[in-house]
Amino acid sequence: MLIVMKPDATQSEIDRVLEIIGKLGYRGHAMPGETRTAIGITGNKGSVDPAHFENLPGVADAIRVTKPYKLISKDLRPEKSAIKVGNAYIGDGSLAMIAGPCAVESADQVFKVAEVVAASGARFFRGGAFKPRTSPYAFQGKGEDGLKILAEVRDRFGLNIVTEAMDEHGVDLVEKYGDCIQIGARNMQNFSLLKYAGQTRKPILLKRGLSATLDEFLLAAEYIMSEGNYDVILCERGIRTFADHARNTLDISIVPAIRRVSHLPVIIDPSHASGHNYMVEPLAKAGVAVGADGLIIEVHPCPEEALCDGAQALTPDQYRSLSDMIKVLQSALNASESDSTTFNTKELTA
Amino acid sequence: MLIVMKPDATQSEIDRVLEIIGKLGYRGHAMPGETRTAIGITGNKGSVDPAHFENLPGVADAIRVTKPYKLISKDLRPEKSAIKVGNAYIGDGSLAMIAGPCAVESADQVFKVAEVVAASGARFFRGGAFKPRTSPYAFQGKGEDGLKILAEVRDRFGLNIVTEAMDEHGVDLVEKYGDCIQIGARNMQNFSLLKYAGQTRKPILLKRGLSATLDEFLLAAEYIMSEGNYDVILCERGIRTFADHARNTLDISIVPAIRRVSHLPVIIDPSHASGHNYMVEPLAKAGVAVGADGLIIEVHPCPEEALCDGAQALTPDQYRSLSDMIKVLQSALNASESDSTTFNTKELTA
Amino acid sequence: MLIVMKPDATQSEIDRVLEIIGKLGYRGHAMPGETRTAIGITGNKGSVDPAHFENLPGVADAIRVTKPYKLISKDLRPEKSAIKVGNAYIGDGSLAMIAGPCAVESADQVFKVAEVVAASGARFFRGGAFKPRTSPYAFQGKGEDGLKILAEVRDRFGLNIVTEAMDEHGVDLVEKYGDCIQIGARNMQNFSLLKYAGQTRKPILLKRGLSATLDEFLLAAEYIMSEGNYDVILCERGIRTFADHARNTLDISIVPAIRRVSHLPVIIDPSHASGHNYMVEPLAKAGVAVGADGLIIEVHPCPEEALCDGAQALTPDQYRSLSDMIKVLQSALNASESDSTTFNTKELTA
Amino acid sequence: MLIVMKPDATQSEIDRVLEIIGKLGYRGHAMPGETRTAIGITGNKGSVDPAHFENLPGVADAIRVTKPYKLISKDLRPEKSAIKVGNAYIGDGSLAMIAGPCAVESADQVFKVAEVVAASGARFFRGGAFKPRTSPYAFQGKGEDGLKILAEVRDRFGLNIVTEAMDEHGVDLVEKYGDCIQIGARNMQNFSLLKYAGQTRKPILLKRGLSATLDEFLLAAEYIMSEGNYDVILCERGIRTFADHARNTLDISIVPAIRRVSHLPVIIDPSHASGHNYMVEPLAKAGVAVGADGLIIEVHPCPEEALCDGAQALTPDQYRSLSDMIKVLQSALNASESDSTTFNTKELTA
Repeated sequence: MLIVMKPDATQSEIDRVLEIIGKLGYRGHAMPGETRTAIGITGNKGSVDPAHFENLPGVADAIRVTKPYKLISKDLRPEKSAIKVGNAYIGDGSLAMIAGPCAVESADQVFKVAEVVAASGARFFRGGAFKPRTSPYAFQGKGEDGLKILAEVRDRFGLNIVTEAMDEHGVDLVEKYGDCIQIGARNMQNFSLLKYAGQTRKPILLKRGLSATLDEFLLAAEYIMSEGNYDVILCERGIRTFADHARNTLDISIVPAIRRVSHLPVIIDPSHASGHNYMVEPLAKAGVAVGADGLIIEVHPCPEEALCDGAQALTPDQYRSLSDMIKVLQSALNASESDSTTFNTKELTA
Repeated sequence: MLIVMKPDATQSEIDRVLEIIGKLGYRGHAMPGETRTAIGITGNKGSVDPAHFENLPGVADAIRVTKPYKLISKDLRPEKSAIKVGNAYIGDGSLAMIAGPCAVESADQVFKVAEVVAASGARFFRGGAFKPRTSPYAFQGKGEDGLKILAEVRDRFGLNIVTEAMDEHGVDLVEKYGDCIQIGARNMQNFSLLKYAGQTRKPILLKRGLSATLDEFLLAAEYIMSEGNYDVILCERGIRTFADHARNTLDISIVPAIRRVSHLPVIIDPSHASGHNYMVEPLAKAGVAVGADGLIIEVHPCPEEALCDGAQALTPDQYRSLSDMIKVLQSALNASESDSTTFNTKELTA
Repeated sequence: MLIVMKPDATQSEIDRVLEIIGKLGYRGHAMPGETRTAIGITGNKGSVDPAHFENLPGVADAIRVTKPYKLISKDLRPEKSAIKVGNAYIGDGSLAMIAGPCAVESADQVFKVAEVVAASGARFFRGGAFKPRTSPYAFQGKGEDGLKILAEVRDRFGLNIVTEAMDEHGVDLVEKYGDCIQIGARNMQNFSLLKYAGQTRKPILLKRGLSATLDEFLLAAEYIMSEGNYDVILCERGIRTFADHARNTLDISIVPAIRRVSHLPVIIDPSHASGHNYMVEPLAKAGVAVGADGLIIEVHPCPEEALCDGAQALTPDQYRSLSDMIKVLQSALNASESDSTTFNTKELTA
Repeated sequence: MLIVMKPDATQSEIDRVLEIIGKLGYRGHAMPGETRTAIGITGNKGSVDPAHFENLPGVADAIRVTKPYKLISKDLRPEKSAIKVGNAYIGDGSLAMIAGPCAVESADQVFKVAEVVAASGARFFRGGAFKPRTSPYAFQGKGEDGLKILAEVRDRFGLNIVTEAMDEHGVDLVEKYGDCIQIGARNMQNFSLLKYAGQTRKPILLKRGLSATLDEFLLAAEYIMSEGNYDVILCERGIRTFADHARNTLDISIVPAIRRVSHLPVIIDPSHASGHNYMVEPLAKAGVAVGADGLIIEVHPCPEEALCDGAQALTPDQYRSLSDMIKVLQSALNASESDSTTFNTKELTA
């Protein structure tokens, strides 16, 4: 915490601030400047609440310095975490492909897609049995019946199942039938659900909220981890902005930003971010190029008949073509990085 | 739904669209224009999913027309709803004042504030026993013990209790101890919680999500109402924007926007919106002037010692002063409106 | 500037930062903390560029502290500035009403509106001769002929003329014919135009850019003032957000935020902010209640035939009604404030 | 334009709308539906102003359908435009690299960078002689002296010069010394400047405004083209959002969105978008992968001493490394696309 005093702050106002810092058990460092005094605080273990200072006489500003997260941090664990999902890994250096329909509609629909997904070499299958829909009158998912179909996909095609839970009951069911519990964007700050998910032993795919800052996103992961479940995979799926050409704005810059502070893997969802079929391929490639650990892609055997989000689903043919492109791209990226491994690690002035 | 064809769309592409409209059980109306053909759809009862059309050959755009809400709509109930909360109303034409601390910390703290709030003539008391905090390491509220203190406030001071529930267990407890169940901004699209809240018989104060559009906000209310609980009060508490001078941007324009389409009452929360003590008074006045049905205000006996959100809490003295100002303002608004009742009702060209 | 070192920063990395601070002519204050060292900088007169430090080895963050503005600041001039526009003032404690059509279309149209505006007691008339339109194919304004009509409004009705200039040539013409030069939102960071406007002797009405932060807005005013023209009036006209129920989101919280740091007057434009006729009245009232120094309102004799922005214009009848309401509201606010003058000036803990 | 009537609209209100449509010279198509009537408009050549209808009795909504642009559109020119800049092309299928320092500081600084840029195989050099700075007290650029240094770069290194103009005088000078006139983000809706730039015969690099929608961006290009200059290159450089981990949010989804409607080339600026050195490489790769026609990158011989935006500049070594990676990536993308050329062109249901 840094307290910036007003230019006309009196000595007794400065002393008052130092006194309160002392009472809170911290140390205050007054730095008289050309036009105003600033007071640094040290001795705090977590972050300090600016509210203690912001409205005191003579105080112009109280600026937070210490970050409030611990378990997600590279300070704690410098190397990247590889998370085991079923019998495969996300974050181990390979590119994880998670593909499948938005919603489970029928066994037939799901198996058709699973066949294509498995044939392409992907290790993960997605599909929703509980669907968070903006309108209460829209299709809400098939529930446990849907989960049973997904479990069958694992048995038949050897794919690991990633599927969303919207509440505690859903977490219990997904823990039973699936391999990875997805927490959706709208529940990213449903703190009760995060804590509950933190008590399961299945890995969690946590989607970024539509208006979540980097810190809020990481702290949502911290909620899960602080309950003992360290297997968290982050997912960027677009943020809400003024831009109207895509459903949301895919914020790829969060990938390097997460890498800089956290050891958790991060994947990209180009389907939900864009909301448009024609944008999925270019955004998927960009997600790979920016360094994501995986992609989550919607595929539907007949998109124009989908009960949910058909506009953005790829056809099986389109998915196959995308999967091929991604493999070429990924090899090129690996090749180019082994040629110039020093770029990111070398400090600017070293 | 309006389908806009590309300028170079062929007749067979147009026919294909009309055929699909027919298959879905709707009627298509082709309107050949100067440069392109548009196709209107009628016969739909709810809104039509653009996904059915967006990727068809020759289609440039699919524009949604019908709004997906029913129960919140003035089409259903033209006059404004007055919601009974305990022994008083919100939305009956008077201005509802809901005041109290952010979090219940102790009986002493709460009673000190309750005394001031009751003396000012307010009918509602707020205070959180379950606190949604961005960090898992921040104070999370006193739980059921806090609710018991709030119940005592009702007994001692005759104030009706508004307090937040974050999950199903919380809804049960608030139903037992409180008078109005608050659903916080971060849970506005926690659809499982909305449905559960829709099954209680206590009124719901629904806060707008940080990045919720008008339609999403109204549909969240629709979720509650579609379960049978029609007593919903909407609350604007600031949205997330690029602006950094306030914690959030208070979007007062949503008040007239809600009035135009919905019969539900809407209140303003200037404390959470601004995050700064010095902004609460001017934003509160603006909320009254824009026509809100009430205000929800944070008051703390000693803001710089608050365990939660102290920076924005008013002191008891400040609250008293604000309450007096609001009364003068409200009378002036009532007077000015009775002088010019025709402004809003009269159509522009009538 | 506060430099936050990484937890694992070495002493030689800390020394390197201190050395660079010294080279730049500032003083560095190292504050070793529990987990990391922070380094405060004093001795700087303006703000320090974080780029000097951000990429140095061992540096986690460089946080800007000093604000880069001078002339707009209350540090320089604690009392509010009243700006003379023609023969009347904006910012002198009265509420300035600036009304008129979006665009000057014809003498007849303008005079009809001017008559109503003058009769209501307003002192300022608005109307555009140069119109910044999103499309090059939309009506661009009548140019100098339009300005001549506005000059006639001043002669006939005694109203002071506020009108927009889009370039240097426009500034020269508005200086000749008008009383106040408006710089529109889209030109708020057209720095060449700001400098040019800073060299005129006519007051400037500066509209906030659609995505301007408080600092950027104030620094745009600083550009004008740094050229010698201190007569700047700020105008909030809505910002761009995800919300789609209004054309822009009126950010009333900027009024108290400006008051806290600057002596410049600030007015509200509810017409451009909302883009809808039905929202103008409630937003105008909110603008007055939040403490703005004035309102700028669009009025058109026949809105549905307007060449520009008709959807938001008030009819003459609506304007008359609004003006009456505003007067009642303003008296009530003055009365309530004289009763409780201590609210804002009194410090929380004094 | 589609007019949606209220459910309770009377026949005479519907007739009134049809009458006004007729008066404006268009044709109205009434489509009576289950709950309400919609009225389509055809016969309009440009877009219709919703203001004509929005406030009429019985009207619920007026929805714009026709896009207001012409010259930028693929309807006019289906194949992509390749723009000649000096002696090289942007948009011809190769990837254009435009690199150089943010600001021209000295001949020495510029030549050091130019040597690296030319050696890497790039054809374009960037560097600002006129700098749009948020604060009037920040370095504003070297003006004409800076342009002379850039002209020398062309002579010595054979690089084509891209540099910003902020006003008409600047356009004249850049036309004289440079090869491509950059219009910065803050001037994207400086319509006077756009028109002036439209009258030069040098190509224009138009940066997207911080809060510009796709339509506004394209219409800004349309302003330039409507004056006769068809050589416009679009540039995405990040938009303003709530996200605070990067200076702006790079919106890569605008690349496929532009491709869908316009023939103009589009490039990506990862340096300004991110504002951080460590983000430039991953965002640059993403820009290439998403299909941009080029990159514009800041390079400085000694970033921590830069007078402007040093935090985001690459060192010469970093640039060399990036350039190598980009080449590998671009070949892989070309290879993968020639394998699956049908992805984008094939319609979903063909």
